Amino acid sequence: MDHRMRFGSLTNPFEDVRRASVEHNLECLEIMRMFGSRYLSVWLPDGTNSPGQLSLFDQAGWLDAALAEIYSKLRPDEIMLVEYKFFEPGFYATAIPDWGRAYSLAEKLGPQALVLVDLGHHPHGTNIEQVVAHLIHLGKFGGFHFNDRKYADDDLATGSLDPAQLFRIFVVLLEADRRGLKSFSEVSLVIDQSHNIKNPVEEMIESVEAIERAYVQALSVDFGRLEQVRAIGDAAAADQILKNAFHGPATDAVLWKSRVSRGLPADPLGALREDRHVERRREQRGAAAGEVRKDAGVLGG
Amino acid sequence: MDHRMRFGSLTNPFEDVRRASVEHNLECLEIMRMFGSRYLSVWLPDGTNSPGQLSLFDQAGWLDAALAEIYSKLRPDEIMLVEYKFFEPGFYATAIPDWGRAYSLAEKLGPQALVLVDLGHHPHGTNIEQVVAHLIHLGKFGGFHFNDRKYADDDLATGSLDPAQLFRIFVVLLEADRRGLKSFSEVSLVIDQSHNIKNPVEEMIESVEAIERAYVQALSVDFGRLEQVRAIGDAAAADQILKNAFHGPATDAVLWKSRVSRGLPADPLGALREDRHVERRREQRGAAAGEVRKDAGVLGG
Amino acid sequence: MDHRMRFGSLTNPFEDVRRASVEHNLECLEIMRMFGSRYLSVWLPDGTNSPGQLSLFDQAGWLDAALAEIYSKLRPDEIMLVEYKFFEPGFYATAIPDWGRAYSLAEKLGPQALVLVDLGHHPHGTNIEQVVAHLIHLGKFGGFHFNDRKYADDDLATGSLDPAQLFRIFVVLLEADRRGLKSFSEVSLVIDQSHNIKNPVEEMIESVEAIERAYVQALSVDFGRLEQVRAIGDAAAADQILKNAFHGPATDAVLWKSRVSRGLPADPLGALREDRHVERRREQRGAAAGEVRKDAGVLGG
Amino acid sequence: MDHRMRFGSLTNPFEDVRRASVEHNLECLEIMRMFGSRYLSVWLPDGTNSPGQLSLFDQAGWLDAALAEIYSKLRPDEIMLVEYKFFEPGFYATAIPDWGRAYSLAEKLGPQALVLVDLGHHPHGTNIEQVVAHLIHLGKFGGFHFNDRKYADDDLATGSLDPAQLFRIFVVLLEADRRGLKSFSEVSLVIDQSHNIKNPVEEMIESVEAIERAYVQALSVDFGRLEQVRAIGDAAAADQILKNAFHGPATDAVLWKSRVSRGLPADPLGALREDRHVERRREQRGAAAGEVRKDAGVLGG
Repeated sequence: MDHRMRFGSLTNPFEDVRRASVEHNLECLEIMRMFGSRYLSVWLPDGTNSPGQLSLFDQAGWLDAALAEIYSKLRPDEIMLVEYKFFEPGFYATAIPDWGRAYSLAEKLGPQALVLVDLGHHPHGTNIEQVVAHLIHLGKFGGFHFNDRKYADDDLATGSLDPAQLFRIFVVLLEADRRGLKSFSEVSLVIDQSHNIKNPVEEMIESVEAIERAYVQALSVDFGRLEQVRAIGDAAAADQILKNAFHGPATDAVLWKSRVSRGLPADPLGALREDRHVERRREQRGAAAGEVRKDAGVLGG
Repeated sequence: MDHRMRFGSLTNPFEDVRRASVEHNLECLEIMRMFGSRYLSVWLPDGTNSPGQLSLFDQAGWLDAALAEIYSKLRPDEIMLVEYKFFEPGFYATAIPDWGRAYSLAEKLGPQALVLVDLGHHPHGTNIEQVVAHLIHLGKFGGFHFNDRKYADDDLATGSLDPAQLFRIFVVLLEADRRGLKSFSEVSLVIDQSHNIKNPVEEMIESVEAIERAYVQALSVDFGRLEQVRAIGDAAAADQILKNAFHGPATDAVLWKSRVSRGLPADPLGALREDRHVERRREQRGAAAGEVRKDAGVLGG
Repeated sequence: MDHRMRFGSLTNPFEDVRRASVEHNLECLEIMRMFGSRYLSVWLPDGTNSPGQLSLFDQAGWLDAALAEIYSKLRPDEIMLVEYKFFEPGFYATAIPDWGRAYSLAEKLGPQALVLVDLGHHPHGTNIEQVVAHLIHLGKFGGFHFNDRKYADDDLATGSLDPAQLFRIFVVLLEADRRGLKSFSEVSLVIDQSHNIKNPVEEMIESVEAIERAYVQALSVDFGRLEQVRAIGDAAAADQILKNAFHGPATDAVLWKSRVSRGLPADPLGALREDRHVERRREQRGAAAGEVRKDAGVLGG
Repeated sequence: MDHRMRFGSLTNPFEDVRRASVEHNLECLEIMRMFGSRYLSVWLPDGTNSPGQLSLFDQAGWLDAALAEIYSKLRPDEIMLVEYKFFEPGFYATAIPDWGRAYSLAEKLGPQALVLVDLGHHPHGTNIEQVVAHLIHLGKFGGFHFNDRKYADDDLATGSLDPAQLFRIFVVLLEADRRGLKSFSEVSLVIDQSHNIKNPVEEMIESVEAIERAYVQALSVDFGRLEQVRAIGDAAAADQILKNAFHGPATDAVLWKSRVSRGLPADPLGALREDRHVERRREQRGAAAGEVRKDAGVLGG
């Protein structure tokens, strides 16, 4: 590998490295088409570690130029998703650190460029559902990388720490759909997590369940009544409507019924464990994993 | 008022102001007894706005001395609750900025000094339930000032933004009670909020409901099973147990039954609005508030 | 006052309050012209305290419409500065919470709308000099509200806690000027602080000195050499160039010489104290302030 | 490796892993002695990723027990440094997340246990110099892991982003020395960084220079005068004294003179580059590194 890659890809100070990075993205376009996908998701490992390293104007200018070239190769039905990330791998100035920069890029590139929101890529305190609402309002929202976090880009199971935030995000999505601002079916939904403690298949089931739950909770919001009480400034009643939906006792029943009607197990994690699928997979992988299985009884065997 | 008060109370650089501040706290002790309370809650507006203003060692030393004098006046059954706050009113160095400093003070003062946890007084990302667990583990946990926040010490309605965190706090409290580390009945529970948008009585009801809900959710945790799966490193099953309790459909039923059995309305906010108590109170307060009532229809009259 | 103002101004759910708020801004335009100013700085106390209170889409739409109406009344040489703020007074969803939203508004409004950067209005960790660079790159940077902070919008004396950040901001401004992206003379520079501990005149002098110092430090950056070492990826040499400018022993000499050549005192704070201007002012204000002067000897009298 | 290590070391739920982890620390004690060191620095990769994973009370109890056993093996002149870290590798609940927990451990263990402060291991906004002052005040401050950061535990070059904070830390250290609270010579000073962009030797020189500079700046504070103006509440004059020391033109002269008098080059980085030591080292390492040297001219050869 060219050691100069540590200075970045599309914003590398060396012209030939920038060129090679653009070519790499064009290759990704080809691979994308081979798999029948129409979304090119662009996340860049570009950022600097000190104020001297790079001019922030060169960084911005090179990024504009490189993305414009890649964008120009898109076919009419293809979408470029521009992802932002607060920090990491760069620790001083990330090339696309926030939704504002991602939005400005998508705006200049054209209608096929949209912004991707990874739930773990924001400063503490950020109102993520409002970021989503603003991007929808501006016609530039593309979709999600779902996960949860407590500190930085922790990539924990979606909804595992802050399920209420996940619910509020889905409320915004359904409100946008109702208002004709963005069809829910056009939102790209991807899970982007890191599984270090739990069995990855099990943690994926946990995450899907959390997303399904948030969706069902949001579906049970009485939006008509919500609009009425908001119009008269009755915040207490409005919050009550949201709380009723979030804590609604019917949520589990809806989830179970929906799964059974599609021929799926009502309790996916329980069904998985009963089938011992995971355990059998682990056995096939051999001794190291087996050690955990035997001693830790991860699957309660 | 003495303008030197802007330099703080118990950590004021002027000796006579420190003295007067100690006397003021001793007066509070008297008032406390008049009201039949045995908790002296100490929160200090002490902090500096620039590095030059005060020596951090003088700040610490004066605080030790002043609290020791106040503590020495406690009767055997009285408790001093030491509250910490990350910042504000001081914006450079608050006298008691974190639980570590509050704990060290309580430790030196003696067994009648405990630490008070206000949910809004922490840096972003702080694991508050772990702070509570550490204080209980060290025998120095006193109680709460309940509220919720998104940014700083926002003093929003308890549980209004992060109900899952509130639930986890109650899980820790019940676990401590089960283990005999801290009786739940000895935890001081206080709501400390600021009501700017909603009717204060209604927002207080909302907060009490959120706390009751978190308590019932925590009560429905299967702690025996939780211990078993934790012992074998089965984090997936452990989190499932907590989620089942948090999303449990039975929570509302328990809350309603409990209220009715005590002769209370099952739906306190609805009952309040039906009685129009708040509205009548507002009418008595006159024109200014009336304007809101009429135009905004806050109570849906 | 209309109590419904607590629901906001330009994004108030009541149409008549929104209308009155627009009229209020148009009045501000008149006052601005009376004073010979051409900058209308728009900061809004608009934000919500709970998810139910307002639809984020209504909030965004009403804001668009109101600002468009105000913008339409600008004369060709007048500038609207759109200010963002992370939070406060709203504690759930501020109408313009970040530079991304402010930029999108300025972009839609037209060439006379620019973004105002208040140094204290960002989430922790934000790279403010990069925000400035991005806004300049996009042609939408208007100017500053200078101050410093450690926690939230603390409004401390500019440069009092993080002078290196202030220096980096000026390096970006001079780099932009060199590249012809934004003339330094067109940047609006305003100090926006809150003086609680020190004498306000003295703290203002401290802040002006800090800004002058950062400017002189940035002027002494060897930009030609900086570009050379950046081009070959020599980050160590690049940071050294910035450090030499920041710690440069010549800075004070330049500041002093420049002041003397303009007939100003070399040491403004010292000169002020020698003249006892502040003290005399305080004496005229009478007893309450006098108490501080006598006991605390704030001016070393 | 035992896969159960992912559940932690001294706080692992499996008793035999906890035992093995204690034994590992005892081995470290032996290695420490082989190298003639008397500091055992304890940093733990212990933390959980979800609320269910572990009881926070078990985590705390097991940690107490394990550290007590390790501490009991210390010889009278040996020191255990307890390090805390806000998060990572655990993303829900780190075993020692803050100075409060580290302090409580050191307090219970005994006089040979002190707390280690890594500058990058705090929540945003934390006043680190005050944490140091509090630990010194409590007799439990051990030393530092120096680095700088903007976001999380970024491990950037010390003083590269916030040199004023580094200066304030040294002011606190010298103040403590003057007051006889902690001898400066007993403070453990260690650099703990990660070098990804720059040549590691060069970045280490940059860091040492920053630390030396902060020390010289702090030495030039007029502490006598500082105490006088603090005593009369003259914060403006106090901050001026600190600023004069921080921006003092004499700092470089002192640093250069001190180096020359010890037979060292006045400009270490320049001297290194002149000697082309680094470049020759790189040549010996062969082709991969050579590529960087030739194309990027990292050393300006």
